[in-house]
Amino acid sequence: MLKVAQIQLEPLLGDCRANNSKIKSFLDQSLDADLIVLPELANSGYNFTDRDHAFDVASGSECINYVNFLTEYAQENNVYIVSGYLEKVKDILYNSSIFVTPGGDSGNYRKIHLFMDEKSIFEPGNIGLSVFDIKDYKMGMLICFDYLFPEIWRILALKGADMVVHPSNLITDNAYKAVPAQSLINGYYVITTNRTGTEGDITFCGKSFITDKRGNVISSMNQFDEGINFTEIYPLLSRNKMITAGNHVLADRRPECYSDLCD
Amino acid sequence: MLKVAQIQLEPLLGDCRANNSKIKSFLDQSLDADLIVLPELANSGYNFTDRDHAFDVASGSECINYVNFLTEYAQENNVYIVSGYLEKVKDILYNSSIFVTPGGDSGNYRKIHLFMDEKSIFEPGNIGLSVFDIKDYKMGMLICFDYLFPEIWRILALKGADMVVHPSNLITDNAYKAVPAQSLINGYYVITTNRTGTEGDITFCGKSFITDKRGNVISSMNQFDEGINFTEIYPLLSRNKMITAGNHVLADRRPECYSDLCD
Repeated sequence: MLKVAQIQLEPLLGDCRANNSKIKSFLDQSLDADLIVLPELANSGYNFTDRDHAFDVASGSECINYVNFLTEYAQENNVYIVSGYLEKVKDILYNSSIFVTPGGDSGNYRKIHLFMDEKSIFEPGNIGLSVFDIKDYKMGMLICFDYLFPEIWRILALKGADMVVHPSNLITDNAYKAVPAQSLINGYYVITTNRTGTEGDITFCGKSFITDKRGNVISSMNQFDEGINFTEIYPLLSRNKMITAGNHVLADRRPECYSDLCD
Repeated sequence: MLKVAQIQLEPLLGDCRANNSKIKSFLDQSLDADLIVLPELANSGYNFTDRDHAFDVASGSECINYVNFLTEYAQENNVYIVSGYLEKVKDILYNSSIFVTPGGDSGNYRKIHLFMDEKSIFEPGNIGLSVFDIKDYKMGMLICFDYLFPEIWRILALKGADMVVHPSNLITDNAYKAVPAQSLINGYYVITTNRTGTEGDITFCGKSFITDKRGNVISSMNQFDEGINFTEIYPLLSRNKMITAGNHVLADRRPECYSDLCD
């Protein structure tokens, strides 16, 4: 069993100091969990004016130090944490998700499918799809709009993910249609932690949720409130991929019929 | 615009003569439509005792003549028809779907992903995935349990399908979770015509439905009744694959990240 805390919050655009402080306060209230999952770009906010704006924010020391802060926090408090964050590598920005562990290890994911104006700010993810160890379980990471692309959900299943964490800044209801299906199709849990609030002309959907391997929503939050939601999940259930007594959701694939996907 | 008639019916297991007669009666009542879509194995029923039983049924003249009957019917009545049927080629059985046109053309699809005991009766589909012309539109075909495999939905989108017809013999609610998502993800209509009734220990779900390119269910039937449902669809809407002002559901794919799908 894994106890998950989803922190649904509203970052303040560009104010990494205020966001770090708010995140620390929420983390301190989430320590009953094994795994804490924050939204996309939790430390920076989302709706940057342009790339220069995002680059300025990413260059501030509070933003740069966010991953170090999480890494130390996870070790000091014996907890696993996943958070979306604004990543800067030299002159390049990525929309990324960091995974930190009690043992001081970390894993990174860079959003592969960029949404709307993100294309003018971030480079698309270039480090592929990995599956990380969390206790006895395997966890994949995706970010927000990645939800629309079944190819990468499937790759994470093929790599052995028992669950996928999905930090998000959702602004439409499409994910609530697509994510439960991905969960069912691949036979694993999905933990979608969304943000809430408004930035300029963008209102975020909140409604963070978790689906089980049958695509059932087993936990959900409301649209507007910041808060923490605790849910117990059983990732080993995802190891049984039989969807009927005679059908295995992965072994029944016929890759010899799928070559058009990779041309 | 394309007017679709879904014929939800209960075949009589193994009695192709009775089924052909029932199907003809329903077809006669559907001629206000451009396209008529019947369920999976509409001419034969589903729950064969074993392969020998299915082979005996498939060897009867009424079963063998079904495709010819549909081909002539489509020409005589100026209508397009899709029907699931029991296909026999020499000693091999397939769970197939036939498409016939007013011009006398036809297209075939053999179910790629077999469900439960079908594996001991049918060979898996070996003629790939094609897209067929219907008026000015492009149509793909899948059958029932294929719904769980996002790879083939995607391939049909990449081949230009404006809609996918999906003759089914559904017995669980999983398709009602998965199909709307496939529709949304690929930006096309899906026409799922299911059967109704009971054969032995199997009760079929009925509830035939149609989804639009946003994954919304725009038409649905009940679980238990045979009948015809007429729905007007607008397949050219599927040609606009922009899901936001800045995102195209196909052009935003990153195939260079998907090679693990085809190994």
